[in-house]
Amino acid sequence: MEKSIRVLRVGQRYVRDDRTLTHLCLVSRALGAESIYLEDAEKDVVGTLEEVNRTWGGEFKAVLGLSWKKVIQEAKKEGRKVVHLTMYGVPIQEAVGELRKEGKLLLVVGGPKVPGKVYHEADYNVSVTSQPHSEIAALAIVLHEIQSGEELKRAFQKSRLRILPSARGKRVVEN
Amino acid sequence: MEKSIRVLRVGQRYVRDDRTLTHLCLVSRALGAESIYLEDAEKDVVGTLEEVNRTWGGEFKAVLGLSWKKVIQEAKKEGRKVVHLTMYGVPIQEAVGELRKEGKLLLVVGGPKVPGKVYHEADYNVSVTSQPHSEIAALAIVLHEIQSGEELKRAFQKSRLRILPSARGKRVVEN
Repeated sequence: MEKSIRVLRVGQRYVRDDRTLTHLCLVSRALGAESIYLEDAEKDVVGTLEEVNRTWGGEFKAVLGLSWKKVIQEAKKEGRKVVHLTMYGVPIQEAVGELRKEGKLLLVVGGPKVPGKVYHEADYNVSVTSQPHSEIAALAIVLHEIQSGEELKRAFQKSRLRILPSARGKRVVEN
Repeated sequence: MEKSIRVLRVGQRYVRDDRTLTHLCLVSRALGAESIYLEDAEKDVVGTLEEVNRTWGGEFKAVLGLSWKKVIQEAKKEGRKVVHLTMYGVPIQEAVGELRKEGKLLLVVGGPKVPGKVYHEADYNVSVTSQPHSEIAALAIVLHEIQSGEELKRAFQKSRLRILPSARGKRVVEN
């Protein structure tokens, strides 16, 4: 089943962390999500994403200007299941069977401070181990599990460059 | 099969990026690696890791003071397979069958600039998609795939705190 997966990042950060944000966006794109919802203040990353699309293909989008409450509300209205990633949640390996049956998902990725309300608004709170690590890694594993690894085989349309996988060295061709 | 997996980060960075380094360490620990090799200049993260071990258990270690060449050389001497993660490599889903048979592995994670020699010294160059994204996400997926998801079920010994996974909210107990 072709899935529609979107990502939302929630949580006030005390220090701007552009690198983590960029990683979250690029992981969402590379591993099969169609868009990510960002806060207005994070619009710097939009240019980076457009450049990545131009070079490497696909139509991944950053969506700006909506509050997290609005995004979750709209998702629910259209029958999109809301999955919040948190180390306190139910193990992904236990929830994934149900999640694989869903066609439309919103993955909510927390920063250091996630409002308590997110835990209650979410249809699922899932964890990738109950150990502290990285929201980037957690997002990657959840995207990978929900899509049963199929996302790794996906081709990106209309790219300028394309890598030919190789056992040694770097092979890149222009399309 | 219980595996011995170690991680090495290679590649000069022009800007120090402590956040990415911390994520790489914590992901290595949470997803079943036993240690990570760091450059001497990165020793600030050692205190963080000791604190995480004390609170959340386990014996994950940061090893300082060895050049990447030395680490790879020593790994090969003890029959440890060297797996370099790069977007130019062979898809992980094609290499994973062989990698699962190995008991001892060294995963090499590149920063922005990886010396060409690493591609040649590695036993495997593997990619997690041929798209640009995040070394943190790539490391997570490779650890997850090599261990067939078993790493998610692992318990960390001697922790001070432990999370009780729950569908809503946060439940933490003291051991």
